[in-house]
Amino acid sequence: MRCEIVAVGTELLLGQIVDTNSAWLGERLALAGIDRTHGQTVGDNLDRIVGALELALSRSDAVIVCGGLGPTQDDITRDAIAAVMGVPLEPDDDVADRILERFAARGRRMPANNMRQALVPRGATAVADPQPGTAPGLICPVGDKVVYAVPGVPYELREIVHGAVLPDLARRAGTVAVIRSRTLRTWGDSESGLAERLADHMTELDAAGPRAPTLAFLASGIEGLKVRITVKADDEATAARLIDAEDEIVRGLIGDIVFGVDDETMEHAVAKLLDARGLTLAVAESLTGGLVASRLVDVPGAGTWFRGGVVSYDPEVKYSVLDVPEGPVVSARTAAAMATGVRRLLGADVGLGVTGVAGPDSLEGEPPGTVFLSAVVGDAEPVTTRVLLPGDRQRVRQFACISLLDMLRRILAAPSGETPAGWPLA
Amino acid sequence: MRCEIVAVGTELLLGQIVDTNSAWLGERLALAGIDRTHGQTVGDNLDRIVGALELALSRSDAVIVCGGLGPTQDDITRDAIAAVMGVPLEPDDDVADRILERFAARGRRMPANNMRQALVPRGATAVADPQPGTAPGLICPVGDKVVYAVPGVPYELREIVHGAVLPDLARRAGTVAVIRSRTLRTWGDSESGLAERLADHMTELDAAGPRAPTLAFLASGIEGLKVRITVKADDEATAARLIDAEDEIVRGLIGDIVFGVDDETMEHAVAKLLDARGLTLAVAESLTGGLVASRLVDVPGAGTWFRGGVVSYDPEVKYSVLDVPEGPVVSARTAAAMATGVRRLLGADVGLGVTGVAGPDSLEGEPPGTVFLSAVVGDAEPVTTRVLLPGDRQRVRQFACISLLDMLRRILAAPSGETPAGWPLA
Repeated sequence: MRCEIVAVGTELLLGQIVDTNSAWLGERLALAGIDRTHGQTVGDNLDRIVGALELALSRSDAVIVCGGLGPTQDDITRDAIAAVMGVPLEPDDDVADRILERFAARGRRMPANNMRQALVPRGATAVADPQPGTAPGLICPVGDKVVYAVPGVPYELREIVHGAVLPDLARRAGTVAVIRSRTLRTWGDSESGLAERLADHMTELDAAGPRAPTLAFLASGIEGLKVRITVKADDEATAARLIDAEDEIVRGLIGDIVFGVDDETMEHAVAKLLDARGLTLAVAESLTGGLVASRLVDVPGAGTWFRGGVVSYDPEVKYSVLDVPEGPVVSARTAAAMATGVRRLLGADVGLGVTGVAGPDSLEGEPPGTVFLSAVVGDAEPVTTRVLLPGDRQRVRQFACISLLDMLRRILAAPSGETPAGWPLA
Repeated sequence: MRCEIVAVGTELLLGQIVDTNSAWLGERLALAGIDRTHGQTVGDNLDRIVGALELALSRSDAVIVCGGLGPTQDDITRDAIAAVMGVPLEPDDDVADRILERFAARGRRMPANNMRQALVPRGATAVADPQPGTAPGLICPVGDKVVYAVPGVPYELREIVHGAVLPDLARRAGTVAVIRSRTLRTWGDSESGLAERLADHMTELDAAGPRAPTLAFLASGIEGLKVRITVKADDEATAARLIDAEDEIVRGLIGDIVFGVDDETMEHAVAKLLDARGLTLAVAESLTGGLVASRLVDVPGAGTWFRGGVVSYDPEVKYSVLDVPEGPVVSARTAAAMATGVRRLLGADVGLGVTGVAGPDSLEGEPPGTVFLSAVVGDAEPVTTRVLLPGDRQRVRQFACISLLDMLRRILAAPSGETPAGWPLA
């Protein structure tokens, strides 16, 4: 089964927006075990959309065309599909009713153009619109092949693809297998280091045949590396069992650097640990300038455990507000004093401190990328480490931020009294 | 002159990376007055790359193919171009020397595969590699048409496109005109509001013929709206003069909401004004949780005017650290007390305060999106305003951040003693 994606919109050709839909769809197709060999982009031009659909149908079994379903004269995807099918467009009464209802509910006059969204090529089916009264998706049979039309608005596209397109594709592909995946998110090792630790196990999986789980590495920039586990099975229950078993094996090999699953971020991982232990947190930041605090408040419910922070960018603020002893600010002593100082000032259980050199220039004889991280839990001694981080000013700051959060995660996850494994980082 | 873009890479089809190159190239072509009617994406497959290039050459005068120039066996773009040209690949001695030098300089053994990057189709020209010793760009004549090959790494691609591809395209297009553009960045009005204020002027420009400047609106999310001025002229000096003249006219109509030019951000605008007046700044943040401070320290040289900040997320931190009087925290009084409190605590000339409801729940009876902003300069009375911001938790926080910075910008830019125009916002 092969499926091609055609993105429609002059604004894509002009570079006014980046086509994120094709990448998202490509990933969904790959996860569903459906091949994709080509992608096309065309503007809002009838002949060219028709040409792109005909080319796609000549080499693929299915085509997903995104965009051009809106109410304006530029939105001509449905006209192009009707031309390819050799049929007229006809109004769909259900869709028309929903459009009228939407305008009536808002007490607004409906521009006549909006009724264009109720037109459907004869023989095609309109599939539920995620926002009632806007453009529905279309399933359009062409011989024994099919064209799916979906809106270009990412939220609407995703709803329709999950709700109607992928199930229809799976039915046509006659796939009996259920394909499921889980992503383990890691931080603290390089891609080659990770590959080395998993190499023997991956060789075993390769040898175990086509029904064995597969592993893939995905880089996600400063957020670390992801290891995606994918399994095929005859039913959901077996898929879930297989994925859990593989998850356990992978964590046996790299569990120390796994911080989360799927969409879980580092700050979510920290939040869960603080919540579980009933601890509150305060943060003192120098080079990161508020980045650590702003990531922490992104977690819903942060108010229960996050007290706040001090951005002590100027050295005098460190001395006067946080009671840091005067002296070199790019030092372990300053990082530790910031952590204990902010913990005391804000009345928190846990204090974090981060100071260093973002660059481009050296500071106090230390090169750009030199960063000191410190964490103090209760009245214990602060844990402090020095790391050398790569990249420009902005990357150093972002790496410092996630390094600090990962340090706290390891401390909170370690059995009480034990030094967390894997520190210092560098 | 019509140019087509072909993106090569199986990782693009699988959705592992988003194709930002095509959008960037599309924008450059549009600015250069070159038409683009189609885009294609193919995987690392010789027949399919050849097919995509042949299709592109059948309907366009020039083709830019991105990616597949690396040293691995998967990188076969140069083989595909040679097949389309009907010529063999031959080593380019200069390129080979640079590759050998790069490895020698690092004292590393060169994997044999790397010499593939020195191969060039007979009749094609290698154009300077931005990182000496990596893949060069290629200019490959095909009859009276041309294929340009550029690496998929965005930084390398941009260097080669600016340095070699666009000049060659301009020469082939026989363009005598110089096309230049400038973007005015605005904040504080809607797209329809902006369009209304510029409507009469745009009608005049339309009537003035093909050599008149053109204006385009570009949305840039929470960073506001951009107005792009584009001019055509016979030489650079005339283009510069035309663009300055149009800039002055546009600012005469919407100057109050213009905060920067081209890549200048709101924090750059604030930094320039603080620097010019020799003032230092401190920030007290509640719902934004450090976002304002972290944007400010992104400005190079922030150390000269940024003292730091307090993230008073928990109400108790507002009372105990910032001396905010106890009472409702979502209030003008609290925002003003935060601004004056942080200014005093950190010893700054200017203090900013922001408090409000990020959502999803209401707080103290105030709906999500309710935000109070305050700024105090020296011993003057704080200027405080209430805004109602749209969107989810994250957007409210981001809008609050830029609203606060814009408020300070207007205060600092206003002639001393005058109330800045345009406040309150909502």
